[in-house]
Amino acid sequence: MTGRVAIAGLGPGDPRLWTAEVRDALAEATDIVGYGPYVARVPDRAGLAKHASDNRVEIERATHALALAAEGRRVVVVSSGDPGVFAMASAVFEAVEARPSAFRDLEIRVLPGITAMLAASAAAGAILGHDFCAINLSDNLKPWAVIEKRLTLAIEADFACAFYNPRSQARPEGFGRALALMQAACERGRLITFARAVSTPEEHLTTVTLDEAVPEMADMRTVVLLGSSRTRRIERPGRAPFVYTPRSVPE
Amino acid sequence: MTGRVAIAGLGPGDPRLWTAEVRDALAEATDIVGYGPYVARVPDRAGLAKHASDNRVEIERATHALALAAEGRRVVVVSSGDPGVFAMASAVFEAVEARPSAFRDLEIRVLPGITAMLAASAAAGAILGHDFCAINLSDNLKPWAVIEKRLTLAIEADFACAFYNPRSQARPEGFGRALALMQAACERGRLITFARAVSTPEEHLTTVTLDEAVPEMADMRTVVLLGSSRTRRIERPGRAPFVYTPRSVPE
Repeated sequence: MTGRVAIAGLGPGDPRLWTAEVRDALAEATDIVGYGPYVARVPDRAGLAKHASDNRVEIERATHALALAAEGRRVVVVSSGDPGVFAMASAVFEAVEARPSAFRDLEIRVLPGITAMLAASAAAGAILGHDFCAINLSDNLKPWAVIEKRLTLAIEADFACAFYNPRSQARPEGFGRALALMQAACERGRLITFARAVSTPEEHLTTVTLDEAVPEMADMRTVVLLGSSRTRRIERPGRAPFVYTPRSVPE
Repeated sequence: MTGRVAIAGLGPGDPRLWTAEVRDALAEATDIVGYGPYVARVPDRAGLAKHASDNRVEIERATHALALAAEGRRVVVVSSGDPGVFAMASAVFEAVEARPSAFRDLEIRVLPGITAMLAASAAAGAILGHDFCAINLSDNLKPWAVIEKRLTLAIEADFACAFYNPRSQARPEGFGRALALMQAACERGRLITFARAVSTPEEHLTTVTLDEAVPEMADMRTVVLLGSSRTRRIERPGRAPFVYTPRSVPE
């Protein structure tokens, strides 16, 4: 049995959103590697070694997973959401590139999962039903000026926008600046949805207009969806509205 | 038992990419509604009525599904990929809005799936591992000028870009115009990946530089991924390269 690495997406929280491919990879694994809270989502069983690490040590974690595979282990690196969207897949390939002789011939597969923005869009209705973009608002790995430029151009393009990592204790100000930029660039009635912990018992969705939005509506468990100029809300008495973007743009 | 509609994503092809939530909804359904080839992906069983329709009749299909639910049926509308990404979810909400008295109180849920661009990015490596956008290149429902504007701004923002519906027999010219725009706006060595029929027996991935790309590399079963300026290729002798976008943008 040769070693291999699968980088698997656990979706936003509920195991019912795992794909069968991910479930099977977890069942066949000898080792699970990942950020502690995601590793904890995988049930314990005999013969399964779990390697939980802290946040923000992605390259060390990726290198550890690759080294275990090079020893012949069947390793699954777990991410929340989809591993290819602001998660572990790019970190693993960065680690492969950094050590050409060690890891390049390993079997490495990315197993997609349900990413937070698509779970949030579905829970609200279909906010991302037309052209859209995804922007990571953390400035850990890129300058804030790049975030502002991308946000400005995305609004000019009239994309619906999904914002990952809008706000953390270490970065409390950034989202307020992004929100102020949106409020200056968009019409007052533009819809914005704050989707927290989708598919978990703590799930909470709030849709407001941009002039009603305040930075405190987001935290580190929230994905924020800014509608395009065409995004609409279907009100339903006593129930959450449907929020969706139509498929067409008029001439 | 009251009627309800679930709009379910069947992923790019392989049933191993279905979520458990989608599998369970299909098992409990009385009626499956959708475009013929997607309805055909759901196994037959006693008590299950399958309603296959032609392409491009999304609103009629959505209204039919809602009418069945209003009669008390448990309806699953099937989409390929994720129903919220250029698929049936927005069409269902358009149909709800068009008939306020009939459908607004129905239970309607969107069950996310693996959308084509994320399956393609995973099959190649992690092309969409940094900020990115998704653009539908079909001009059936929006003017071509909107597509060109969005594409131009997306390249200026240095998003990786996923293009859905790049080319069909009814619209053979559009993708060539989009490709010429990319070739004029990006450096020659920018990577572009043509991912056809991912997760099916016909899966075929091709990654080339923009100056090597020709329109005939895309067809109606292809999703096209244009890398950002940072997207890289890790060559592997005798095997497909890994193509990925690093997580960081330098100062």
